[in-house]
Amino acid sequence: MATQKCGSHSFQLSQPPFITGWASVAGKKESQGPLGKAFDKTSKDPYFGEKTWEQAEKRTQELALETLLKKTGLAMSEVDLVLSGDLLNQCIGSSFSLRNTGIPHLGLYGACSTMAESLLMASMVVGGGFADRVVAMTSSHFASSERQYRFPLGYGGQRTPTAQWTVTGSGAALVCAKGKGPRIESCTVGTVTDLGIKDANNMGAAMAPAAHDTICAHFRDLGANPDQYDRIITGDLGQFGKELLIELCQRDGVSIGGKLEDCGSLIFDNTKQDVHAGGSGCGCSAVVLCSVLLEKLRTGQWKKILFCGTGALLSPTSTQQGLPIPGVCHAVCITNGGI
Amino acid sequence: MATQKCGSHSFQLSQPPFITGWASVAGKKESQGPLGKAFDKTSKDPYFGEKTWEQAEKRTQELALETLLKKTGLAMSEVDLVLSGDLLNQCIGSSFSLRNTGIPHLGLYGACSTMAESLLMASMVVGGGFADRVVAMTSSHFASSERQYRFPLGYGGQRTPTAQWTVTGSGAALVCAKGKGPRIESCTVGTVTDLGIKDANNMGAAMAPAAHDTICAHFRDLGANPDQYDRIITGDLGQFGKELLIELCQRDGVSIGGKLEDCGSLIFDNTKQDVHAGGSGCGCSAVVLCSVLLEKLRTGQWKKILFCGTGALLSPTSTQQGLPIPGVCHAVCITNGGI
Repeated sequence: MATQKCGSHSFQLSQPPFITGWASVAGKKESQGPLGKAFDKTSKDPYFGEKTWEQAEKRTQELALETLLKKTGLAMSEVDLVLSGDLLNQCIGSSFSLRNTGIPHLGLYGACSTMAESLLMASMVVGGGFADRVVAMTSSHFASSERQYRFPLGYGGQRTPTAQWTVTGSGAALVCAKGKGPRIESCTVGTVTDLGIKDANNMGAAMAPAAHDTICAHFRDLGANPDQYDRIITGDLGQFGKELLIELCQRDGVSIGGKLEDCGSLIFDNTKQDVHAGGSGCGCSAVVLCSVLLEKLRTGQWKKILFCGTGALLSPTSTQQGLPIPGVCHAVCITNGGI
Repeated sequence: MATQKCGSHSFQLSQPPFITGWASVAGKKESQGPLGKAFDKTSKDPYFGEKTWEQAEKRTQELALETLLKKTGLAMSEVDLVLSGDLLNQCIGSSFSLRNTGIPHLGLYGACSTMAESLLMASMVVGGGFADRVVAMTSSHFASSERQYRFPLGYGGQRTPTAQWTVTGSGAALVCAKGKGPRIESCTVGTVTDLGIKDANNMGAAMAPAAHDTICAHFRDLGANPDQYDRIITGDLGQFGKELLIELCQRDGVSIGGKLEDCGSLIFDNTKQDVHAGGSGCGCSAVVLCSVLLEKLRTGQWKKILFCGTGALLSPTSTQQGLPIPGVCHAVCITNGGI
């Protein structure tokens, strides 16, 4: 078999898989933001009809998968594999959403980088000829995250200026060997980067070094430069992390300032929605990708983007034990498929 | 690209990757069990020189990777990718062990099925030509698991007869495109199976239906039968789960009784070590695979095994909310490579 490997952290798909469909499900606050109208389904009920925040998050994944299948005209039994994960302890949003569906499932954990991680893995599974139709999916929920990582909502804790707001929502994308739509051309796998940041309310700063590392590796491995991309879009660095990333890349002579967008900055209107440094959570980059980003590629408004999922690999336990926050970033280069 | 897919849940590797090396690190209780002498490294110190149980678990992964590299004569920089995960919230055993190593990392969550899941994914990454040298790795720790899933150790909680003992240890295997050693011939991806079992002290019963589902899918997809395998080896069903699995398969006319072994039953001597239903945890199947199982294939004592990682996809939160325990099982068919 011919190698699809290129450079030390990246691979190129010899037959780039197609993203033939996508779906997004989001909560009330997200529906009131600048991208509100772009989501397939939104709910005013933060419980999404369930009894607990965790089951609400699970429900967003069920809805995202159902909507994706409806939009693409596929039956559950026609999906070869779901690659998914989430932020909840033991990823119960993902596993419980797939109970008894009969769809083969491989669980992932990449914190907020999960949408990029699942897409990257889906491109390997499809590009390697192991499956024809693979769903990449993830979710997060504001209330389940606050309870698990910070304080119970009823406590009314004060938020710091660098804090981000966990997005409630789920995104799912269908990656296929054949079809029509944006294509995954190459991917760069991230390394676990730890520069000693310890402030769990400043995740952007913890993730920016990982994003810098992966983005520079991508350009190096592919022999590419930012000018060849319409946009470089990070997951959820927020305002502060984004500025830090531009600075870190600048030091290496890689100028991404004019091309950089961040899903955490796109999803909310910070002047009106009081989200401090922006959105975050696995669901943040998932719902932005599976709505406006893929749509702009589909319509040809963009020809090529670098989608960079960023994750902070902390746990409440590691933070309580005084450990720093390692970060990771996985990058997926998506083209419009030559339309 | 020619498809490597076969049947609805399985794939066959057109050029079966080699498992060219493996390493196992285990705790004191494991070192006193029937397989004690087979492990590469054991420690009498449950903290493995660290300050917390969670960091001890992280240390077992560091040691497993170091030992694997030493045994195979590779440098860190020669590893293309590590696929790993563990049971700790947010998989901090895996992410913290790889901090600043510079090795690309993709995080997994499959509960106790993680060793099989990581091997299965490694075989796709290598078999698809995306990388040449991939490490599949996982860990668990008795004390970090008890604290997280059950009670603090100091509480001295009474264990039920169906309870299992989480293995302290880590296993790592190197999957390569070229080389010598056992080969991964085919894999079957599991589905999330939930028959409504709610007893978090009887995980064997929760996982057995998933094992049944995957093992039967494997034989169906591959057109194979148990007689063609020297052993069918489940992860950590324990005594009760193992008996249940034999019964479930028998009902489908698949007779695995004479071939079935369980890592959870192999690792401890239940007559002397008071572990109730047997061993469990991601590290259980990992250290058994990465010692005696791969060794028996390497020496030609066995020609072919089906290694079936079994995972209970619960979280303490899902249990407290009264939800059942979904199970999953991934199967990897490993041959002796035709020696």
